Amino acid sequence: MKKCKLDLTLEAKPIHDECGVFGMYDFDHGDVASSIYYGLFALQHRGQESCGIAVSDTRGPKGNMLSYKGMGLVNEVFDNDRLSDLHGDIGVGHARYSTAGESIYANSQPLVLNYVKGTLALAHNGNLVNANELRARLSETGAIFQTTIDTETIAYLIARYRIHSASVEEAVSRTIDDIKGAYSIVIASPRKLIAARDPFGFKPLCIGRRDNTYVVSSESCALDTIGAEFIRDVLPGEIVTISPDAGIQSDTSHCLPEDKMGRCIFEYIYFSRPDSMIDGKSVYEARIRAGRYLAQDSPVEADLVVGVPESGNAAAMGYAMESGIPYGTAFYKNSYVGRTFIKPKQNARESSVRVKLNPIRSVVEGKRIIMIDDSIVRGTTSGQIVSMLKEAGAREVHVRISSPAFRYPCYFGIDVPARDQLIAYRRTEEDIRQLLGADSLGYLSLDRLSQMVDDLAICKGCFTGDYPVDPPEEDIRGKFDA
Amino acid sequence: MKKCKLDLTLEAKPIHDECGVFGMYDFDHGDVASSIYYGLFALQHRGQESCGIAVSDTRGPKGNMLSYKGMGLVNEVFDNDRLSDLHGDIGVGHARYSTAGESIYANSQPLVLNYVKGTLALAHNGNLVNANELRARLSETGAIFQTTIDTETIAYLIARYRIHSASVEEAVSRTIDDIKGAYSIVIASPRKLIAARDPFGFKPLCIGRRDNTYVVSSESCALDTIGAEFIRDVLPGEIVTISPDAGIQSDTSHCLPEDKMGRCIFEYIYFSRPDSMIDGKSVYEARIRAGRYLAQDSPVEADLVVGVPESGNAAAMGYAMESGIPYGTAFYKNSYVGRTFIKPKQNARESSVRVKLNPIRSVVEGKRIIMIDDSIVRGTTSGQIVSMLKEAGAREVHVRISSPAFRYPCYFGIDVPARDQLIAYRRTEEDIRQLLGADSLGYLSLDRLSQMVDDLAICKGCFTGDYPVDPPEEDIRGKFDA
Amino acid sequence: MKKCKLDLTLEAKPIHDECGVFGMYDFDHGDVASSIYYGLFALQHRGQESCGIAVSDTRGPKGNMLSYKGMGLVNEVFDNDRLSDLHGDIGVGHARYSTAGESIYANSQPLVLNYVKGTLALAHNGNLVNANELRARLSETGAIFQTTIDTETIAYLIARYRIHSASVEEAVSRTIDDIKGAYSIVIASPRKLIAARDPFGFKPLCIGRRDNTYVVSSESCALDTIGAEFIRDVLPGEIVTISPDAGIQSDTSHCLPEDKMGRCIFEYIYFSRPDSMIDGKSVYEARIRAGRYLAQDSPVEADLVVGVPESGNAAAMGYAMESGIPYGTAFYKNSYVGRTFIKPKQNARESSVRVKLNPIRSVVEGKRIIMIDDSIVRGTTSGQIVSMLKEAGAREVHVRISSPAFRYPCYFGIDVPARDQLIAYRRTEEDIRQLLGADSLGYLSLDRLSQMVDDLAICKGCFTGDYPVDPPEEDIRGKFDA
Amino acid sequence: MKKCKLDLTLEAKPIHDECGVFGMYDFDHGDVASSIYYGLFALQHRGQESCGIAVSDTRGPKGNMLSYKGMGLVNEVFDNDRLSDLHGDIGVGHARYSTAGESIYANSQPLVLNYVKGTLALAHNGNLVNANELRARLSETGAIFQTTIDTETIAYLIARYRIHSASVEEAVSRTIDDIKGAYSIVIASPRKLIAARDPFGFKPLCIGRRDNTYVVSSESCALDTIGAEFIRDVLPGEIVTISPDAGIQSDTSHCLPEDKMGRCIFEYIYFSRPDSMIDGKSVYEARIRAGRYLAQDSPVEADLVVGVPESGNAAAMGYAMESGIPYGTAFYKNSYVGRTFIKPKQNARESSVRVKLNPIRSVVEGKRIIMIDDSIVRGTTSGQIVSMLKEAGAREVHVRISSPAFRYPCYFGIDVPARDQLIAYRRTEEDIRQLLGADSLGYLSLDRLSQMVDDLAICKGCFTGDYPVDPPEEDIRGKFDA
Repeated sequence: MKKCKLDLTLEAKPIHDECGVFGMYDFDHGDVASSIYYGLFALQHRGQESCGIAVSDTRGPKGNMLSYKGMGLVNEVFDNDRLSDLHGDIGVGHARYSTAGESIYANSQPLVLNYVKGTLALAHNGNLVNANELRARLSETGAIFQTTIDTETIAYLIARYRIHSASVEEAVSRTIDDIKGAYSIVIASPRKLIAARDPFGFKPLCIGRRDNTYVVSSESCALDTIGAEFIRDVLPGEIVTISPDAGIQSDTSHCLPEDKMGRCIFEYIYFSRPDSMIDGKSVYEARIRAGRYLAQDSPVEADLVVGVPESGNAAAMGYAMESGIPYGTAFYKNSYVGRTFIKPKQNARESSVRVKLNPIRSVVEGKRIIMIDDSIVRGTTSGQIVSMLKEAGAREVHVRISSPAFRYPCYFGIDVPARDQLIAYRRTEEDIRQLLGADSLGYLSLDRLSQMVDDLAICKGCFTGDYPVDPPEEDIRGKFDA
Repeated sequence: MKKCKLDLTLEAKPIHDECGVFGMYDFDHGDVASSIYYGLFALQHRGQESCGIAVSDTRGPKGNMLSYKGMGLVNEVFDNDRLSDLHGDIGVGHARYSTAGESIYANSQPLVLNYVKGTLALAHNGNLVNANELRARLSETGAIFQTTIDTETIAYLIARYRIHSASVEEAVSRTIDDIKGAYSIVIASPRKLIAARDPFGFKPLCIGRRDNTYVVSSESCALDTIGAEFIRDVLPGEIVTISPDAGIQSDTSHCLPEDKMGRCIFEYIYFSRPDSMIDGKSVYEARIRAGRYLAQDSPVEADLVVGVPESGNAAAMGYAMESGIPYGTAFYKNSYVGRTFIKPKQNARESSVRVKLNPIRSVVEGKRIIMIDDSIVRGTTSGQIVSMLKEAGAREVHVRISSPAFRYPCYFGIDVPARDQLIAYRRTEEDIRQLLGADSLGYLSLDRLSQMVDDLAICKGCFTGDYPVDPPEEDIRGKFDA
Repeated sequence: MKKCKLDLTLEAKPIHDECGVFGMYDFDHGDVASSIYYGLFALQHRGQESCGIAVSDTRGPKGNMLSYKGMGLVNEVFDNDRLSDLHGDIGVGHARYSTAGESIYANSQPLVLNYVKGTLALAHNGNLVNANELRARLSETGAIFQTTIDTETIAYLIARYRIHSASVEEAVSRTIDDIKGAYSIVIASPRKLIAARDPFGFKPLCIGRRDNTYVVSSESCALDTIGAEFIRDVLPGEIVTISPDAGIQSDTSHCLPEDKMGRCIFEYIYFSRPDSMIDGKSVYEARIRAGRYLAQDSPVEADLVVGVPESGNAAAMGYAMESGIPYGTAFYKNSYVGRTFIKPKQNARESSVRVKLNPIRSVVEGKRIIMIDDSIVRGTTSGQIVSMLKEAGAREVHVRISSPAFRYPCYFGIDVPARDQLIAYRRTEEDIRQLLGADSLGYLSLDRLSQMVDDLAICKGCFTGDYPVDPPEEDIRGKFDA
Repeated sequence: MKKCKLDLTLEAKPIHDECGVFGMYDFDHGDVASSIYYGLFALQHRGQESCGIAVSDTRGPKGNMLSYKGMGLVNEVFDNDRLSDLHGDIGVGHARYSTAGESIYANSQPLVLNYVKGTLALAHNGNLVNANELRARLSETGAIFQTTIDTETIAYLIARYRIHSASVEEAVSRTIDDIKGAYSIVIASPRKLIAARDPFGFKPLCIGRRDNTYVVSSESCALDTIGAEFIRDVLPGEIVTISPDAGIQSDTSHCLPEDKMGRCIFEYIYFSRPDSMIDGKSVYEARIRAGRYLAQDSPVEADLVVGVPESGNAAAMGYAMESGIPYGTAFYKNSYVGRTFIKPKQNARESSVRVKLNPIRSVVEGKRIIMIDDSIVRGTTSGQIVSMLKEAGAREVHVRISSPAFRYPCYFGIDVPARDQLIAYRRTEEDIRQLLGADSLGYLSLDRLSQMVDDLAICKGCFTGDYPVDPPEEDIRGKFDA
């Protein structure tokens, strides 16, 4: 049996989401920065590279946005002094992940700017597919770009449309006519909090309330953290404008029929917190269901069901519930790996994977194990985990994956390796099983994927290559299809 | 029903162990600092306040110990430059927890010193009960103390006994005649690595090997991390001397009969990593068993068994296995709380406990829940977690604790609140149940405690007030018995 | 005699320049970042709040500018790793001073941006008087501003004019038609290094060369530091374009006749380094001359001439040379005050001024002292220094100032206190003398000011209120004329 | 003419003093930490590697010393929070310089310890010549050493003698019987502030007072800074005990006759601040005198006298006064070099010396220059400065040194290069002149050295090899006499 020989990093999962956004408006004019801090803390799993908060006082002059941004986790960037300097009753926050090359201060969010009508602060989660085109168009009429984030492009469009629009929300609406792709945006204007979600609903966004304070958040879990009540999801394509004058105003003119939508299924499979609800579906329940489906569709005799922590655990519980095979923990995961952790050298005797994940021999020894993970990307980590289980004495290791085989690039905000590095690229399931060294392998089927979320319309592009929106041409020919 | 009103901190568990120790000796003279780093990383859960590594070259001059220590986690204190400066084939490392007042640089370990025979580096886990007495005695003959840690007292005794001893291990042996309490010590002398464990075996300590390199570690999990093979535990009371001349030499003259020993049962219940083996028993299995015993002794009809993460999860799985009731996850635990995290203010709207732990409503709603935790100390967190479950819609919450009621102080290295702050202090189980707001409450019985570890001799002092060694008099009258 | 009661900060001089700029282009394609670092180090006295370096490779793609910026001194912001990451043969650097409110990361320079023709990096020293007007005009056509620095306004204009210009230098030329005020700019475009100085020559700017590398610098001293040879000053109003194709190209279409120019005389009096030459005049010699003129115009019998360190020393030497009275040092100046220095509290017993400046009693005792300073702004420090000398036993203290009385605001880049805080505002020389507690007081006359620099055309606005360019209207009515 | 080829570092002077000490006792029980901070700030020139403050409350329990120490400058180590935590009415502070190998946290001072009578905090400036002997003796009776500083040895002796002494000052007195070498010590005991100076008076130490607060300081300048009045110097050999009961008590039993003393003349020549008085002599005046003597003994026709900044300036002024040749500034010295400054690489085009020191061409050109420096150690910097002056156009450069030729090691606290690296080692004055490339060279004579300080008894060991105390044998044979 061929063994997996690929590199392994300490990062268990080589796919990443891009951001968490959070906005607040206290109609009673209390400071919102501190609650935004806790909101971002609850969204930290969506981005750990940089974060920022921008606030302004809706009763003050229109050009007075205060902000602080920095590289690192929310609890590293902000301290009490910095938070308490940020006086203001309206504000937005952002936690950011990015690919290595762009992980620089200039790209941190929110983007704060002065424009013809005062200040704006924007926070954005997603990825535009026509960004290059829009940048080129704007450049040709004199725009200068100080960052490489789509947020700046969106800001420019809003600023330009604002000149001949009656309101900032109208400018946002005209901007939405231009931009294509995935975006959940929160904007603090001098007097309004605005939230918009792309018509396909790629990224989640929801609205909450705490007394007289309105909240917009990437995920509902952040509402719980700050003690706010969930009101509803922002609809795909909806522009929500929150102000004391009009409360919550909704513009649904960009909304599509449900069957055209394309929610990112990976939000349910992996990105979002299990305690979040997205578009009415529980993330945790979706994962439990995926496990149950696997037990129905790929059953196998075994002694124990285990999850690859943390992301495989819920599906493993679902599998255990459905199959009646006991659920157990096969690994200890060391959670102290920080940004400055020194990776073991290639030739060192320390096992790279064991630094982070160590099998519990007494659990594994002599057992037939069903090992559940949410996805296989490069397959290197999965292969190493299978061997660790075998070395720890597992008699059999049956791998079950709570999503279909990952075969295509994502253009809408998931950072994925080049296509030829995907283990499922031009390989059969049997090839993959051998590469992993597993005794059997089962993926979730495409049909089950939709069932996980009660047939909500989802984007399955990374499994099928069919996307709700056309991807940019250059990328298809260039980077991905070697 | 009376509700719990006490303070809640972000620290889920108000009891703490004191340290992890790690030692290495490469007979082939390779540098050991890098492997000690990974060893400490695997022991990080035993102490997060400060850490340090000291190494020396056994072929160099006897006074040449290199060391680096700092406040914070292993990955914060060390970087590549610092590690690669630490050349030496013998060394010890330490990860430290301490109570607030003593959390200062001067108290970080290993303690490195020059004495009549060159250098020594000492790392210590535990607590002496006669430290004040020994310090007074040493002071009266001119000793000066630059720290407040027991390690310095031990070092002084070794230095003084070394004058008239034939070897450093003989000086260690005579020191052991003097010191009382809990101690697992690792010492690097100019040419020998020495490990000693107190006669009661309070704290774990084991020996491993990687090719020609010998390793001593608080827990076996750290051997896995660095790719070393487990050899055996250091016996309670044993002094092990490791050197190229004599290999592993054992002095068992201080060993007691098995029935006199007093291993800290909290190492199995809570402190140690589940993937460690201590004195032949798997920590994970002990926890699973505790859950099974609870299912047998305190059964209750319910829909789901959940653990309070992370420490209650294994016992919850054991309960699920035994009872046949499904195991699930009721909470999301936010793991991004760092040292600089800003705690919500008392009057803030952010829920202190929800910042760290958020119930998954879809799991909990309408269900009868068995909630397993490893212990209840003050009871504040447990009470809040019960209410969170109820607020999230749980129909019933049945609390089961995988240890007996915690009623007495610990003098051997566990940092516990003052006795009158313990929820079980002068309260019946029914009082406690009411205070928690639970529908039923069950503790593990004292008999089951011993069964968990196949009747190994253990210390049950914190449950019974009977200790293997007499505690210091002043403490009993003073701090604890209000 | 009335004593001076005003506040004293540790900052000896309450006026500040705004920046140092530095640019390099190595036609042999070596990396320039390291030399820019030393260049900025030599210009550090011009700005200590933030600094940055941007470089690009003229042979690489046009959108590939690498930059690093940070708050603090050059030696705090850059380390070896950061410098060596900055590969590129063309680049600009900047050291920045700013008033408190704007001392934020977003305002640090160089400004790096993408525009229709690739990337630009701009570094700017000076102050535009029509910035608000230009920003408003740009905003009305959709511009967004992410900083509050004039550099961004200049960048926008260049980007817009570039659309219909044949070259970047043509766009710079058209930009110069629009902007009014003080500016010395260095710009790195994908293939050219461009330097421009405003037509009045407010701020210095010069060109140097080291082998095949061209250098542009605020002051000539930075050329010495990096081993470059001084070529010439950039002319007031000149645009210099440096490229391998055309060498140094000069556009003098904006140049004014010499008598219209308005070099900032404070560059000679105080801001620039004494080892710099500006427009053919030695800064050190100008200061020596000022001292000589004072000796001629305001002679007094005395035992010793001393300077208020460091800025008064050269003029004091000039006074000593001319008068024959010996030159000495009356003060020790503590140079260890860093950014984090804790200022003595108002009610503390520590003398705020003595923390930084302590008189040498043995020098002063019983002597008649001529104390030379370059300027008096608020007068608080000067008054305290006079009293210190008296307390240390000086029989007489005769104050001589090597510039005229400072009475008006500066609109061209010097940060000055509000007008009613200037000691010379609405006070006679005799009033000021009394306020300082001096035995006599002498200022340099306006005529002598021009003689200092051989009658070069200079701006005397802060002494006379007559400026070479009209200041912005709102400022005159608002802030300064209480 | 042979040119100097040796390395040059940014550190202008390769000799260093070792420390500044400062102690305070407020009989009115106010906190002293803040004033100690300013005191250390005034002594920062004596040591920049680490610093610390220890305080205790004389009305509190005897074991309650609070301290904070750190690597770096006073203003880097302390912030407001740290200072305000240090409550106590008695305390000592220390600023430390050390040779590279020992620049570690463990060696920072004050040394704080518990001993039989409570706590002690010690701060020490100097070097013992019998430290190894004393350490060996103490080790043989069981002492352990956690640092490599003499302060620990002194502390041990005090602790041991205290057992059979009636008071701590008696223990200090018996300690002084044992230790040989240079030491100025300040000690805070639970109820007394003690200061002691070695019988030769190598290092300065003086006493001051501010209202009811007593102060002990290495130099008098620190008294000025905190607004205290100078009372007197501590006598060489004197032990001063300060307490509310007895005020200032003096024990002069170890004092020697004046002609046996050996004050370090380099305190006057270079180390101390010019605004300090040591043993009744002004440091500044001594330097002025040295310059005057040089003018008398080594006259030469020239146009300008300049000092090598900062240490040569005062002697240059003295030379100018005596000779009538004008005094000027020939160099700009960049004061922004911090700890993290990146030194130019050997092969870089940046001139290492010009980064720090740049000649002012307009001053130097065409002139005959007398260049005064306080000493020549390796001669590398001096040689480069001479060439810089010549390159800047000086017609002649006449070097005058305000001390005799430095030829022997110092055993009393000055860190000097190995003897064969001293330029004067086995070289004639003419050899040295050629090596420097100077047109003439003159040293101060040994006789003039004593005259500088009105024939106070001084140590001339580094010039003559004759020391007031015998140096340790091993050093003489080992390191220095190659």
